[in-house]
Amino acid sequence: MKTVAKRKFDNKTFGFEVTARDPKTHARAGLMTTAHGVVETPVFMPVGTQGTVKALTPRDLQEAGAEIILGNTYHLYIRPGIDIIQKFGSLHRFMAWEGPILTDSGGFQVFSLSRLREISEEGARFHSYFDGKEIFLTPEKVIEIQEAIASDIAMIFDECPPATQDKKRIRHSLELTLRWSERARKHHKRPDQALFGIIQGGIFNDLRKESLERTVEMDFDGYALGGLCVGELKDQMLDVISTVTPKMPEDKPRYLMGIGTPVDFLDSIEQGADLFDCVNPTRYGRNGTAFTRGGLRVVRNGKYQKDEKPIEEGCTCYTCRHFSRAYLRHLLNAEEMLGPQLVSIHNVTFFVQFVRSIRQAIREGRFLKFKKDFLNNFSFESR
Amino acid sequence: MKTVAKRKFDNKTFGFEVTARDPKTHARAGLMTTAHGVVETPVFMPVGTQGTVKALTPRDLQEAGAEIILGNTYHLYIRPGIDIIQKFGSLHRFMAWEGPILTDSGGFQVFSLSRLREISEEGARFHSYFDGKEIFLTPEKVIEIQEAIASDIAMIFDECPPATQDKKRIRHSLELTLRWSERARKHHKRPDQALFGIIQGGIFNDLRKESLERTVEMDFDGYALGGLCVGELKDQMLDVISTVTPKMPEDKPRYLMGIGTPVDFLDSIEQGADLFDCVNPTRYGRNGTAFTRGGLRVVRNGKYQKDEKPIEEGCTCYTCRHFSRAYLRHLLNAEEMLGPQLVSIHNVTFFVQFVRSIRQAIREGRFLKFKKDFLNNFSFESR
Repeated sequence: MKTVAKRKFDNKTFGFEVTARDPKTHARAGLMTTAHGVVETPVFMPVGTQGTVKALTPRDLQEAGAEIILGNTYHLYIRPGIDIIQKFGSLHRFMAWEGPILTDSGGFQVFSLSRLREISEEGARFHSYFDGKEIFLTPEKVIEIQEAIASDIAMIFDECPPATQDKKRIRHSLELTLRWSERARKHHKRPDQALFGIIQGGIFNDLRKESLERTVEMDFDGYALGGLCVGELKDQMLDVISTVTPKMPEDKPRYLMGIGTPVDFLDSIEQGADLFDCVNPTRYGRNGTAFTRGGLRVVRNGKYQKDEKPIEEGCTCYTCRHFSRAYLRHLLNAEEMLGPQLVSIHNVTFFVQFVRSIRQAIREGRFLKFKKDFLNNFSFESR
Repeated sequence: MKTVAKRKFDNKTFGFEVTARDPKTHARAGLMTTAHGVVETPVFMPVGTQGTVKALTPRDLQEAGAEIILGNTYHLYIRPGIDIIQKFGSLHRFMAWEGPILTDSGGFQVFSLSRLREISEEGARFHSYFDGKEIFLTPEKVIEIQEAIASDIAMIFDECPPATQDKKRIRHSLELTLRWSERARKHHKRPDQALFGIIQGGIFNDLRKESLERTVEMDFDGYALGGLCVGELKDQMLDVISTVTPKMPEDKPRYLMGIGTPVDFLDSIEQGADLFDCVNPTRYGRNGTAFTRGGLRVVRNGKYQKDEKPIEEGCTCYTCRHFSRAYLRHLLNAEEMLGPQLVSIHNVTFFVQFVRSIRQAIREGRFLKFKKDFLNNFSFESR
């Protein structure tokens, strides 16, 4: 493993450094260096599945404070196709986003979105959600696609079964993912791209620990906790997070995939997590539901009909600086595109800034107070 | 009439001045002063029917160079309702647009969008397109609504029959519109709002001339040519425009309602028109069709799959500064909202800047050369 690790450190493109630690919890702040710039952690990565964070321009993302975004290997491979992104040199240039990009490997999407045909030692055979065409993805192929996309951080291709399956099935899947991880690690060549391993094991803490140890042995640039939010209960998810996260390598970024909500961020950062991604800000935004520090605000609600206040008082996003709840409600009711656009801008800003404010609290040694104050003020629906 | 006119000039909020004339045609450039700023003419007004120019933020509009936009009395009356806009003081504040706004009276919409129940001397009774509720609009009521909206320019309520109806029907309608115009004129009070008359008469030039003369007698702040683009042929429309426009008062703005295309702008400006509005830029933008100086560009077209060029080379809009045809095509194919957003931004910018470039050509005495060069380069579909 040493030689592979050496290549990475020689290149010095990617790096991670913890710069502050909360004295009472596992929470930490750090700096993650990528080929497209330095990212401060903990950080929320807005999801740009198909090469766009839905309804936001790159400028909107920059103004929201986004430091790194996520793209999806599976979707981009199907559409527009890798030859097109390759012609542009990188996804960054194709979508006009100059900051770092992490690409998910597609493991989760293959198993959640596709009509799966066959999974073998070699790879996964399935039908495209787009045109039904048969696609065969292997761990090596998924690395090649991500190298062509030129993301700053690539993920290994994992099998991602529902977390609620029985232990035997989960162990089988875990072993397969480990073999796939090894193959991905060996196949990966791009020196300006980091490669992260993914820890599986469902809701079984012993399997999670084993997956962690054996993945860490392969020496990746960072480690992700995968297979969360796939059917397990919230308590089970938190149990896995609090058991596994603190044991992930101290000197590498820790990425909790697909998480989640403001409360999830606090709980996971307390356990030492650094990176997050989730479609919630744009998905809720399109439906006209806004996230605020007080809870969710259903902007479409009749009670906002004449409300001159912004979605969230004190928020500095473009939407809150210019528009009232009454106007946004009107746009949503009249089915004007600008409604989903503006609520999405607010939500992405909220997520990015919220995680940033946790980061600041860690640096200033007041993480637990921050968490307590937040939870005291938070209810499901904002007042 | 003098006293009514006097009120306007005393107030000095609204004014119009011709600053340049083309030596060979009726084309002219001018300055139109409104309560929310000075507008240079000829000018294209992007259409914000429901209090939003579809998919564009006010910042997008500003960056596109928009100087004045249009709102629709009929739509805003139905949704969000006038009480809400009134609470905000103006449509400007409600939608966060600081520049001038012209409101269409709803005449065209009542007759084109509604299940009409009855038209009488008193007004128009019809069913709301939104909830089927019966609505009764009178010339006075339409003025009151526009005064509540606080637009910079209000339009009289006109009857707007299909231009292809027989002469007897058109004359009857014209007479009704003249009586409604008189009532609107008398009812209008808001000193910081201009009021424009609308000339009707279908495709009958003698009726158009009569409508013009009798409307001008009422002394409005500006005059519009209405009832165009409602079923007549292109040649018939141009015949009306070239017959009537040059006879409209020299010292008042001349507004050609609902027009149109780049070629229409050139033809109408040549006849002395000053103001235009049209939904084409956003309507085509949502379908992924872009306007360029070379013609229409169907961005969704397969031939742009790997095209790294912007929609229009040399265009300075946000979209063309950042994105390729290949990326926009991908967004449109993947049904990503950002696709329609970005093409709409380009199209609105194109329309605004195109009319602005005509204005510049008039000022520099080269209008006909500009028109000739444009037409030589223009085909239906852009190469």
